Amino acid sequence: MLTSRRTIVIDWGDCDPADIVFYPNYFRWFDASTAAHFAAAGLPKPRLIAEYGVVGFPMVDTRARFHVPSKHGDEVVIETTITEFGRSSFTVEHRLMRGETLAVEGFEKRVLVAKSVGGGGLRSFAIPEEVKALFSGDMV
Amino acid sequence: MLTSRRTIVIDWGDCDPADIVFYPNYFRWFDASTAAHFAAAGLPKPRLIAEYGVVGFPMVDTRARFHVPSKHGDEVVIETTITEFGRSSFTVEHRLMRGETLAVEGFEKRVLVAKSVGGGGLRSFAIPEEVKALFSGDMV
Amino acid sequence: MLTSRRTIVIDWGDCDPADIVFYPNYFRWFDASTAAHFAAAGLPKPRLIAEYGVVGFPMVDTRARFHVPSKHGDEVVIETTITEFGRSSFTVEHRLMRGETLAVEGFEKRVLVAKSVGGGGLRSFAIPEEVKALFSGDMV
Amino acid sequence: MLTSRRTIVIDWGDCDPADIVFYPNYFRWFDASTAAHFAAAGLPKPRLIAEYGVVGFPMVDTRARFHVPSKHGDEVVIETTITEFGRSSFTVEHRLMRGETLAVEGFEKRVLVAKSVGGGGLRSFAIPEEVKALFSGDMV
Repeated sequence: MLTSRRTIVIDWGDCDPADIVFYPNYFRWFDASTAAHFAAAGLPKPRLIAEYGVVGFPMVDTRARFHVPSKHGDEVVIETTITEFGRSSFTVEHRLMRGETLAVEGFEKRVLVAKSVGGGGLRSFAIPEEVKALFSGDMV
Repeated sequence: MLTSRRTIVIDWGDCDPADIVFYPNYFRWFDASTAAHFAAAGLPKPRLIAEYGVVGFPMVDTRARFHVPSKHGDEVVIETTITEFGRSSFTVEHRLMRGETLAVEGFEKRVLVAKSVGGGGLRSFAIPEEVKALFSGDMV
Repeated sequence: MLTSRRTIVIDWGDCDPADIVFYPNYFRWFDASTAAHFAAAGLPKPRLIAEYGVVGFPMVDTRARFHVPSKHGDEVVIETTITEFGRSSFTVEHRLMRGETLAVEGFEKRVLVAKSVGGGGLRSFAIPEEVKALFSGDMV
Repeated sequence: MLTSRRTIVIDWGDCDPADIVFYPNYFRWFDASTAAHFAAAGLPKPRLIAEYGVVGFPMVDTRARFHVPSKHGDEVVIETTITEFGRSSFTVEHRLMRGETLAVEGFEKRVLVAKSVGGGGLRSFAIPEEVKALFSGDMV
């Protein structure tokens, strides 16, 4: 499956009084990495929304394991892969690397949703095969 | 003019490696205080949006002056007043107090906007007199 | 085990273009709820740090499951319990409720850390029995 | 004076339910741009802190004017200049550009601070001439 990479420089304001990244920021970066992953595959999220009439791919379940802390000024790389596609759901793994060290692992289960016909709510949206195919490649 | 008050407990994640509030968070709190101010006046922002068909009141110009830092665990009070109404714009002042001490001052100029007729953009929306009247009271 | 409760009003800026909470904010609130849980038990985090010479309780592993989205203006309650104590680690569960509905579940494994003797790094810190005892109570 | 540039891609989570950037995020980016500006001048903030024994350069006064909104997926460039040095304070201007359009202007007054001799508080720290000299160059 396609793996994409994104470099993050950790800002002063991303860190807490212990001078390490305040961990909700990792989820913020992972979310942006998933969006960047779609862009790397050739389907930026704004176009996904516009072309397929979906609302987005909200998170159903997410987890992160923190092995090594990072601090402001550090440069880290997030490697992102969609490891599995379901009908409407997909699973994403993020590996945040400090050099050769695996610092944080992130896991996501998301589901593609659209507005319900005739109003208000949201419904799951079957992921089109041509969208899945975009991620079948190798490294980017 | 009506003044409303809101108490904030400063969280660990609101603070930076110098163990003081990372200042963009003050703007986040001021934004919520302006929303709470509308709610205190009897017109919560979701109802403002629903009843008048507006999109919101985006910021045009904002400023803050920082007199005394705060750190995690501190409890502060934000006092909020709309000091002036224009046709579509209004001016908000926030005073963030640590006890009797004025710690941060915030100033906002916002404008009420609605979707343009027949399309994409936004247009300014004249603030209805009955909305202005809600803020003519005194302390809350 | 002690359970504490905290009410959150969801702000405009907590929500994304789909008008639902941007999920990293849940982790921000859970972090603050864990801190509030220590305060509810009689040991606010600033005092924990000052009295025991610890740096904090960084996250080792965290997970959240999202059942029902929330939007700006919603009021939710977070119920927090420490479900297990290890030597230096502890497990926290958060239940974010919208009325009677379980909207989000959060899980945390954290470890209490102090500065290493004679130097830069961090080391795990055995949780004192009197600290554990503070959480043996019932509901707050 | 030296001007540095930084490109930002606006993330989904940076935007609010009106699908425009939630404005406190501009201050977050401006703060990082000021840090990046020191790095571009050859003195990254971590080294400034380590070499001169300062704590940071907290904000005293900041302002932003919002001319054109941006939305997720947009790429913007922040141009940053220190326009004036005082004894311990300095003034920063940020111009956030969408292509040729000035979208947001930011202004900052900051002061370099160190720990007070003999304890607790902070004191202003005279900006060394060799630090000022780093910013006397031209475009980067």
